[in-house]
Amino acid sequence: MKDNKKLRMYALSEIEHVKIHGRTAGNRSPLALFWTGSGIELNAKGSELWVEVEVDYRMYEPWISILVNSVPVSRQMLTAGRYWVCVFRGMDENKIKNVRIVKDVQAMSGDTDCVLKIHTLKFDGVFMPVPDKPYKVEFIGDSITSGEGAIGAKTEEDWIPMWFSAVHNYTAMTAAALNADYRVISQSGWGVLTGWDNNPHSNIPDYYEQVCGLLAGENNKALGAFEEHDFASWQPDVVVVNLGTNDGGAFNSPEWSDPATGETHKQRRNEDGSYREEDLEAFVQAACAFLVKLRRNNPKAHIIWAYGMLGIPMMPAIYCAVDLYMKSTGDQRVSVFQLPNMTEETAGSRTHPGAMAHEHAAKELSGYIKDILASKI
Amino acid sequence: MKDNKKLRMYALSEIEHVKIHGRTAGNRSPLALFWTGSGIELNAKGSELWVEVEVDYRMYEPWISILVNSVPVSRQMLTAGRYWVCVFRGMDENKIKNVRIVKDVQAMSGDTDCVLKIHTLKFDGVFMPVPDKPYKVEFIGDSITSGEGAIGAKTEEDWIPMWFSAVHNYTAMTAAALNADYRVISQSGWGVLTGWDNNPHSNIPDYYEQVCGLLAGENNKALGAFEEHDFASWQPDVVVVNLGTNDGGAFNSPEWSDPATGETHKQRRNEDGSYREEDLEAFVQAACAFLVKLRRNNPKAHIIWAYGMLGIPMMPAIYCAVDLYMKSTGDQRVSVFQLPNMTEETAGSRTHPGAMAHEHAAKELSGYIKDILASKI
Amino acid sequence: MKDNKKLRMYALSEIEHVKIHGRTAGNRSPLALFWTGSGIELNAKGSELWVEVEVDYRMYEPWISILVNSVPVSRQMLTAGRYWVCVFRGMDENKIKNVRIVKDVQAMSGDTDCVLKIHTLKFDGVFMPVPDKPYKVEFIGDSITSGEGAIGAKTEEDWIPMWFSAVHNYTAMTAAALNADYRVISQSGWGVLTGWDNNPHSNIPDYYEQVCGLLAGENNKALGAFEEHDFASWQPDVVVVNLGTNDGGAFNSPEWSDPATGETHKQRRNEDGSYREEDLEAFVQAACAFLVKLRRNNPKAHIIWAYGMLGIPMMPAIYCAVDLYMKSTGDQRVSVFQLPNMTEETAGSRTHPGAMAHEHAAKELSGYIKDILASKI
Amino acid sequence: MKDNKKLRMYALSEIEHVKIHGRTAGNRSPLALFWTGSGIELNAKGSELWVEVEVDYRMYEPWISILVNSVPVSRQMLTAGRYWVCVFRGMDENKIKNVRIVKDVQAMSGDTDCVLKIHTLKFDGVFMPVPDKPYKVEFIGDSITSGEGAIGAKTEEDWIPMWFSAVHNYTAMTAAALNADYRVISQSGWGVLTGWDNNPHSNIPDYYEQVCGLLAGENNKALGAFEEHDFASWQPDVVVVNLGTNDGGAFNSPEWSDPATGETHKQRRNEDGSYREEDLEAFVQAACAFLVKLRRNNPKAHIIWAYGMLGIPMMPAIYCAVDLYMKSTGDQRVSVFQLPNMTEETAGSRTHPGAMAHEHAAKELSGYIKDILASKI
Repeated sequence: MKDNKKLRMYALSEIEHVKIHGRTAGNRSPLALFWTGSGIELNAKGSELWVEVEVDYRMYEPWISILVNSVPVSRQMLTAGRYWVCVFRGMDENKIKNVRIVKDVQAMSGDTDCVLKIHTLKFDGVFMPVPDKPYKVEFIGDSITSGEGAIGAKTEEDWIPMWFSAVHNYTAMTAAALNADYRVISQSGWGVLTGWDNNPHSNIPDYYEQVCGLLAGENNKALGAFEEHDFASWQPDVVVVNLGTNDGGAFNSPEWSDPATGETHKQRRNEDGSYREEDLEAFVQAACAFLVKLRRNNPKAHIIWAYGMLGIPMMPAIYCAVDLYMKSTGDQRVSVFQLPNMTEETAGSRTHPGAMAHEHAAKELSGYIKDILASKI
Repeated sequence: MKDNKKLRMYALSEIEHVKIHGRTAGNRSPLALFWTGSGIELNAKGSELWVEVEVDYRMYEPWISILVNSVPVSRQMLTAGRYWVCVFRGMDENKIKNVRIVKDVQAMSGDTDCVLKIHTLKFDGVFMPVPDKPYKVEFIGDSITSGEGAIGAKTEEDWIPMWFSAVHNYTAMTAAALNADYRVISQSGWGVLTGWDNNPHSNIPDYYEQVCGLLAGENNKALGAFEEHDFASWQPDVVVVNLGTNDGGAFNSPEWSDPATGETHKQRRNEDGSYREEDLEAFVQAACAFLVKLRRNNPKAHIIWAYGMLGIPMMPAIYCAVDLYMKSTGDQRVSVFQLPNMTEETAGSRTHPGAMAHEHAAKELSGYIKDILASKI
Repeated sequence: MKDNKKLRMYALSEIEHVKIHGRTAGNRSPLALFWTGSGIELNAKGSELWVEVEVDYRMYEPWISILVNSVPVSRQMLTAGRYWVCVFRGMDENKIKNVRIVKDVQAMSGDTDCVLKIHTLKFDGVFMPVPDKPYKVEFIGDSITSGEGAIGAKTEEDWIPMWFSAVHNYTAMTAAALNADYRVISQSGWGVLTGWDNNPHSNIPDYYEQVCGLLAGENNKALGAFEEHDFASWQPDVVVVNLGTNDGGAFNSPEWSDPATGETHKQRRNEDGSYREEDLEAFVQAACAFLVKLRRNNPKAHIIWAYGMLGIPMMPAIYCAVDLYMKSTGDQRVSVFQLPNMTEETAGSRTHPGAMAHEHAAKELSGYIKDILASKI
Repeated sequence: MKDNKKLRMYALSEIEHVKIHGRTAGNRSPLALFWTGSGIELNAKGSELWVEVEVDYRMYEPWISILVNSVPVSRQMLTAGRYWVCVFRGMDENKIKNVRIVKDVQAMSGDTDCVLKIHTLKFDGVFMPVPDKPYKVEFIGDSITSGEGAIGAKTEEDWIPMWFSAVHNYTAMTAAALNADYRVISQSGWGVLTGWDNNPHSNIPDYYEQVCGLLAGENNKALGAFEEHDFASWQPDVVVVNLGTNDGGAFNSPEWSDPATGETHKQRRNEDGSYREEDLEAFVQAACAFLVKLRRNNPKAHIIWAYGMLGIPMMPAIYCAVDLYMKSTGDQRVSVFQLPNMTEETAGSRTHPGAMAHEHAAKELSGYIKDILASKI
C-alpha cells in the first residue's frame, strides 16, 4: 500500500463544518452516538477520508452505514476496539463529497456496555459547510422505527443488530422526501404505557426529556446520556409519534411481575376478546400526558401520531387520546395518521416491516406531512 | 466485550465443507480471490463466525459483500493489512446460516499490488455441506459485467472500486433466478479484439485459458494467476459472453500507439460515420475465434452472446461472427441475445448501468436461458 | 351479415340461471338497474348472445361495461331507446363464458327521467348456474364510491356520466380480491349529515332502507325504487361505509338555503379554522345513528367505516362516532379504516381518484377485510 | 330524452378539419376504414357529437375505441347496419375536445363482407384544426401488431375480433411516446415469405404497395382497397417491420398445398432440429427484397426490423437479410432491434402478448427510436 502523505488528523471537536445528527450531550471529544440514525455529516473536498471509532459492547455490537452523495455504499458491523475506518479513498480531490456516517442500530437499553464513539478524522482536503435542510422532523417509536427487520431474510428470528437498519427505514425515507433533517428516539418492544410484555418501565415518555435516558450504567452516565436534553437547540417542525404497537401487544402477553417489588401489571381483555375499558383508559391517559410533554418541549411542531404498520387495534384509543388532549388544551396542531399495514409481500425479517413496507409507509406519511407543511391541513 | 470462549480457528484448507466460487489456482492456504463474484460459501451451524483476510494494493482496494441466507447484510472496503472481519455473532447456535463472502470488485489489471487472500476462519460451531446448485453459468464481460456503476450516485465520475458491485449485478441476479452457481471473467474497458482505446492487448480471449491471466506482477504469479485454468474442474451449462461494447467504442476513440514498439491500432469509420468493413471484419474474425476457444474448453455448454445494455452498434457484427462460427463448425448450441438498453431511469454512477438496469437485464436474460435449459430453443 | 338461425329469445324473467347484482324491487320483466355496479351475470354456453335494453334520460345517459370471463371487453354509452346490444358472437358454442353486464354509472338523483331496463336476451345456447361467491360485501359512499373521475383525462371538468366507472373502482377491485359478490349504494356529493353544499337532504342514511330512495319521479316510483328494501334477501358479511368526505367539504361551502322553506343550514368553522364543536357533534350523532340503522338491517355484518381517499379531516369525528356507537350498544363488530390518500400520480379526472388510486385503496382495504374475515381482528 | 336542437349534420367530406388515420383510397363519402388503428381525429368545440357508421360482415364484426383527450373512454362492437353512435354529449360547449375514433380490429382478409364506413357527423359546435404530430411512423406486422390477444382472459381461445386491440397495442403506445402520427399494415398469421401455415400467398410484401390489397371481393374493390397506395401523401420518418414470427412458425407447420394447383410449400428443419439452409435463404432473399421495396417507397425513413415478442428463432436470418441488403445497396439507414419476449406474467389471451407485453415492447422500442430520431445512432 502506498501511504497518502497528505492525510492530516482532525479531532472531531476542532472541525467547524460537521453536522451532528441525533441527540448528544454536547461533548465532541469524543462524540458518543446513542440513537439509530444518529451520526455525522460532512461536505468533504479531498481524495481520502478516514474516521476513528471506539466501540464496545457486551452483547449487541453497533453497525454503521456510510452514504456518499446520499447513496448507501457501505454497511458494516463495528467490533470492539478503537480503530480507523476508511470512508473513501482515491477520489477526485477537487470535488465535494457529501458524506454521512450513520449509526444503523438503536440505543441498546439491554446492554450497558454498548457504546460507539467517534474520535478523530483523517483527511487530505477541506471540510466545507453543511447547510441545514429546510425542515426538521423528530420520529419517536418502537422496533418499527428502529428499523428492526428492515434487512435480512424472512426466516431470520435472532434478535441481533444485523437486522436493524436506519437507512432502509421510513424515518430516513420520509425525511429525504421532505428534504428534512431528522432525529429518532426509539426502542424495540417499548410503548406509551408499557412494553409488549406489560412492563410499565418500558415506556418512552418517561425518558423523553433526557438525552438518551433509557440507557443505563456508568459508561452511559459519563457520556451524558442521562442529562436533560436541550430542546432549544433543535426545534422540529414535525414530531411523528409511532407508538402503540407494543401497548396493543401487551393485551396479548402474560402479566409482568416486577422482580424487585413483586408488583404486577397486565393490560386485560374482556371475555369477548375486546380490550378492558379501564386498561384502555390508562393508555389514553398516558398518551394524552405524552402529548402534553411533547408540546411543552416542541412548541412550534405539528405533532402526528402515525400508527398502523403492524395492525391498528389501538387506533380508537389513540384517537380518543388525541381528542382528549385537543379538547383539554385547545391545541389544534395535533393529528392522527394511519400508516399502511405490512403485507406478506413487504415483510422483512423477524416478522417486522421490510424495506418495501418502510418505503410504502414513507410514501404515504411524507405525502401527508407535505400537505401539513404547505398549510393545507 | 465478552470473549466467546468457544471460538476455534480453522485454516480454510482444513474445512471440508466450504464452496469456493470463482477460478482459483487450487491453493487454499491461503485462498486468493481474483475475479468479481468470487468468494467462499458456508453452511454454518453456530453462533459466531469470523474470517481472516490479507489485503494489499497500490491504488485499488478490494471490497466484499457478505450475504446471510442470500440477503446482503454487509458491504465494506478492505483496507491493507491482515486482520479479522466478523461475519456474524450472537446468532442461534442451533440454526444453519448460509453465508457467502463475495469479492465485490473485479480483478485489477491496472494494479499489480492488488490482492485479497482468505486465510483462516474462527467459528464456534460446525460447517455443514454446501450442495451444488443444479446449473453452472459462466459470465464473460467488461465493465458492465464487472458491475461498474451499479452502486453510487449518478453524478459520480471517479474510477474507484467503491462503485463496483458483484451483488447488484445481472450476473448474480441471473444466477439466482436460474438457481445456478456462477463465475465471472470480466475487465472494465476490455473487448474481443481491442479495448475501448484501441489497445489490442486489452482483449479477454487471449487470457481466457489462464486462471486470471490479465493480471500482472510477481505477486499474482506466485498466487497462480497465470497458470492454465483447469476447465475440467467446473464445466458450465451456459456461457454468457457480454463483450463488444468496448470494441464498438474503439471506433470512437483515437488510435492506440504501443509505447514499446510504436505500432498503432485503430478501428476506423467511413466518412458517412459507418464502420469500416475491414475493421469490422477483424472483429468478426476475433469473435469467431473466441467462440472456437470457448467451445473447445466448454464442450457441453450452450454459448450465448448477450449484448445491448449500452447500445447495440456491434450487434450486426456479432450476428455475423456467430453465423460464421456456426456455418464453419456446424455447432448449433450458440445463440445471440439482445439485452435491454440502460435508460436515464435505470442508469447508475459513471454513466453505467445501475442496479435497476441490471435487474432488467437479468429478468430478460434469465427468461431466455430458462427456455434454453428447458430445451425449448 | 349472415343471420344466426339458432338464436332464441328469453324474457329475463324466464331465465332460471341469471344472477342479479344490486338492489332491485323484484320485478324482472323488465329488470330496472338503479345503482352503479348493478347488472346481470350469466354463465353462457353458446356462441352468440344479445341483450335488449330500454333507456331514457333527460340529461345523464347510462353507460354499461361488459366483462367476459372477468375481463372488461366493452364499455359504451347507452343512448335513449329500446334496442339490442350484442354481448358476444362467433365464440365456441361448447365453452361456458362468464358474462357480466354492469351499469357503469350511479343512480342519478338529479335526472328523474334516467332509466335503464333489461328486457330480453337472445341466445343460441344454454344458461348454466352462476354460483354465489363465498362472501357478500355492501359498499355505501359518495362520488368516490360512484367511481366519479376513475376514467378520463386529468383536465376533464364536465360532470357527465362518461367519467364514472363501476369497474375501475375500488368496490369492484376489493370484491374481486375477496372473491365476494357486492353491491353499491352511492351518490356523488352526498354525506351522512349533509351534502358537500350543506344541503341536509343530501344524506344517504335517510334513504338507506329503500330500494333506491334517493331517486325521484313517477317513473322510478313505478319501477319500485321507493319500496322498502328486503334486507333479508341479501345479508352482507361486511358493510363498508365510505362517507364523510362531503360532510367535511360542507365546512368549506356557503350555507344552504331551502328554496321551499327558506330554512338554512351550514357547518361552521371557528376563527382559527377548526370545525365548530356543535356542528361536528351533529355529524357524530348522525354517523352514530346511521350505524344503529346499519346494524338493525345487517345483523351479521362487520361494519367498516373506510375513509381517506380525498383527505382525512373528518377522521377524528368518525372515530368519535364509532366509539360512541360501540360504547352505547356494546357492539364490537364495527371498526374504522383509513384509505390511502389520492396523490397527483394517481388522480383521475375531475380531481377525483383515478383507476390507480382505486387500485391502491382496494389493495389496502381488501388486506384489512381479509384479516377480519379470517377472524384475526 | 330531450332533443338537442343545435345539432347539425356534416358529411365527412365537407369537414375541413378532420385528420384521417390509416391508408385510404381517398374517398370521404363515405370513408372506408381498412386497417387496425385507422380512424378519424377531431378537435371538437361543442357539447354533443355523433358519428354515423355503416357496417357489414359475414363473420368478423368491426370494433371501435373512442378516445377523448387521449384517454380511451369507450370500446364497442359494431353490429351490421347503418346507424348513429354517440361520441359524447352534455359537455362544456366552449371547450375543445380532442376525439379519436379508432378501428380496433385488423383488415379481415378472411371475410370479404367485412366493412366499416363513416358517413356523417352530427355536431352542435365547431371543428378546429388538428395539427400534424412532429413525426410519422409506419408499423408493418402480423397478429402481434394487430393486437391479437391484447384484451381478454388468458384462457380465451376463440379467434374473434373481441380480443384484438389497436389501443392496448405497442404501435399506439410507441407512437404516443414519440409524439408521432402512425399507421399500421398488419395481418394475423402472415409473414415475409409465407404465413404460419407455409402458405406463400400470406405474405405482406406482395400487397404492401396497394391501399389494402390483402382484402378480396367486389365490395373492397369498390372501396378502392386494391388501388395503388399514394406513398407521396404520407412519408414516414420511421418504418417498423415486425415480421418473421410466422415465417419461423412455418418450420413447425405441415406443408401447405395449393387447393387450386396442388403445388405445395414447406419450410423444413434438419434432423437435428435446425432450419434447412436453403429454406432460411429463401426467407433471407424475401426479407431483403422487402427492404428494397420499403426503401423505394419510403425514401427518407429509417427502417427498423423489430422482432422478438414471441421468441427470436428467426433473428439470425433477419440480421443476414439486413446485412445483405445494406451491403448490396450501401443503404445505412436500416437496423434491427430485438423486442422483449412475452412472459407468463405479460401474456394476454390466445397465448399472444397482453397489454403489459405491449407496454414493455413500446418502452424499449420507443427508447430505441428516440435515439435514432435524435441522430444518436
